Amino acid sequence: MSNNSDKAPVIDANQISSWSRESILDLRAGGVDCVQITCAVWEGAKDTLRNIGIFSEGMHEWADLVLPVNCVSDIARAQETGRVGVMLGFQNTSPLEGDVYLVEQFARLGVKVMQLTYNNQNDIGSGCFEAEDSGLTRFGKQVVSEMNDHGVLVDLSHVGERTSLDAIEHSSVPVAITHANPLFWFESPRNKSNDLLQTLAAAGGVIGCTLYPLFIGGADTPLSSFTAMVGDLVELIGVEHVGLGSDLVTGRDDEALLWWRSGYWQRKRDAGHPTLPPWPKWFSSSRDFPTLREGLQDRGFSNEELDLIMGGNWNRLFSEVIG
Amino acid sequence: MSNNSDKAPVIDANQISSWSRESILDLRAGGVDCVQITCAVWEGAKDTLRNIGIFSEGMHEWADLVLPVNCVSDIARAQETGRVGVMLGFQNTSPLEGDVYLVEQFARLGVKVMQLTYNNQNDIGSGCFEAEDSGLTRFGKQVVSEMNDHGVLVDLSHVGERTSLDAIEHSSVPVAITHANPLFWFESPRNKSNDLLQTLAAAGGVIGCTLYPLFIGGADTPLSSFTAMVGDLVELIGVEHVGLGSDLVTGRDDEALLWWRSGYWQRKRDAGHPTLPPWPKWFSSSRDFPTLREGLQDRGFSNEELDLIMGGNWNRLFSEVIG
Repeated sequence: MSNNSDKAPVIDANQISSWSRESILDLRAGGVDCVQITCAVWEGAKDTLRNIGIFSEGMHEWADLVLPVNCVSDIARAQETGRVGVMLGFQNTSPLEGDVYLVEQFARLGVKVMQLTYNNQNDIGSGCFEAEDSGLTRFGKQVVSEMNDHGVLVDLSHVGERTSLDAIEHSSVPVAITHANPLFWFESPRNKSNDLLQTLAAAGGVIGCTLYPLFIGGADTPLSSFTAMVGDLVELIGVEHVGLGSDLVTGRDDEALLWWRSGYWQRKRDAGHPTLPPWPKWFSSSRDFPTLREGLQDRGFSNEELDLIMGGNWNRLFSEVIG
Repeated sequence: MSNNSDKAPVIDANQISSWSRESILDLRAGGVDCVQITCAVWEGAKDTLRNIGIFSEGMHEWADLVLPVNCVSDIARAQETGRVGVMLGFQNTSPLEGDVYLVEQFARLGVKVMQLTYNNQNDIGSGCFEAEDSGLTRFGKQVVSEMNDHGVLVDLSHVGERTSLDAIEHSSVPVAITHANPLFWFESPRNKSNDLLQTLAAAGGVIGCTLYPLFIGGADTPLSSFTAMVGDLVELIGVEHVGLGSDLVTGRDDEALLWWRSGYWQRKRDAGHPTLPPWPKWFSSSRDFPTLREGLQDRGFSNEELDLIMGGNWNRLFSEVIG
């Protein structure tokens, strides 16, 4: 084994950046060994297959820099060969088109993370921007069981609170919140209550603290505030349950944001013109992961704790769920 | 105008029978002037377009017997020419695939009735077989408004109670329950509470009493019990708000029932082997509509009331909503 693979891996549990050689070079420069990248937000099955095809094309074309992560040993292989392991994930279950059989088939194609809902309600449960949440549905229970059976990690980042609690209860293995922050730090429908965070951790799950500007209080929020939040969160749920999920969006434009916000569910005339927010100076690209580690070190975490937060916890969870 | 068109039309607000010349001959023999037939239950957009294509083919092939109903004057034309007017409808919003623009496009293709949900929850609201119902969603409100804007009747037959109440409130025009019965007569998740029925009627809507065996208490239920229920319902909500929606399934087999029950949402191995129930002797085909009228006459309804219940109320509602 090389020196690289003796170190705990650095894992970013969610990015939605453009799929480009430049993004991958940033990840390498930032020392990231594995990243979960979104390959579907509102797409149906066919368009998702095409998206997976585009990722697959890049995996071949940039094989000197990346490799697909289908199991946790692929992350070690990425470390050993100095490449970035890319795990594909959904931010919605729209690619299933209501079909329980599609969970397994997308898993076979390398989709190892599926978020149950994206902001809005669907046939599985509710999203975090709906006024009400009636929990996991009849179909939702089938889908969570299928995800358990086929090594797909359940992601609750944009999911409603009650559906999230139901999913944790229904799942036979730990689940994830790949990219969100605690409500106690910053008030947003996307951030999570202490109750949910504690329930997640009690079931063995992990939350990836996010750097997305709207969920940290804006670009002017200092790094010390973010790292203090990580410290408070570690005190609340334990260091084994806290990681990072940047939600980085480099190489994207306002059209992409419009798509994520509105998908197909409202007319263009009603969707407005959302603009991508500025990012904090201390985290604006994958190259800034070492800055995060330094900030967390300044907060007083030990090297062992830093290794867990920077990727060790995700590696453990992926090992348990994805295999 | 012929004699036929001087009479109030006979309208069956829902059938899911096979699309065949034989079914149409039954409708004609039963004196039915207009029927709403289901062209989608769990299908997505593409398969629904194909289903509409198959209906369209029949409309051409059997033009001596049928004509498509795109507006209420087509019903009068069906009466005048001694044919059966066929209105297409969805029993689910799966054909929209979460896309608000598709309401208008399917309306242009002749889909004039859309049921918001089919038993289960979806991105619009909850179905009547879910444990919980959190009402009309963000997308659901957009879809109901689109249906209002493009002359599509909202159908609540398989919809959850709270989503139904929300839809009535959100809709700018009256809505329908094309095929269900009152809970006060027979207990089933598919039948409707007095509160919902009264709210529907207060907003100008119509319910079609159904003959589907599972929602009338089985094949042995006598006609006099059904007509007594219609009488009690008329007393509760007024004769202007009661019609018929048989939910007739002639020419279908158990495979079709399996599809309606399970669609894509559970594995075949878990779906069991449902069988189609036997129908009452007094209503087993479209030929039995005169028997229903006689039964209702025996219950003591006047000819004017019978005309409203047998189709006049639907004709009025279609006129207000579809135009």
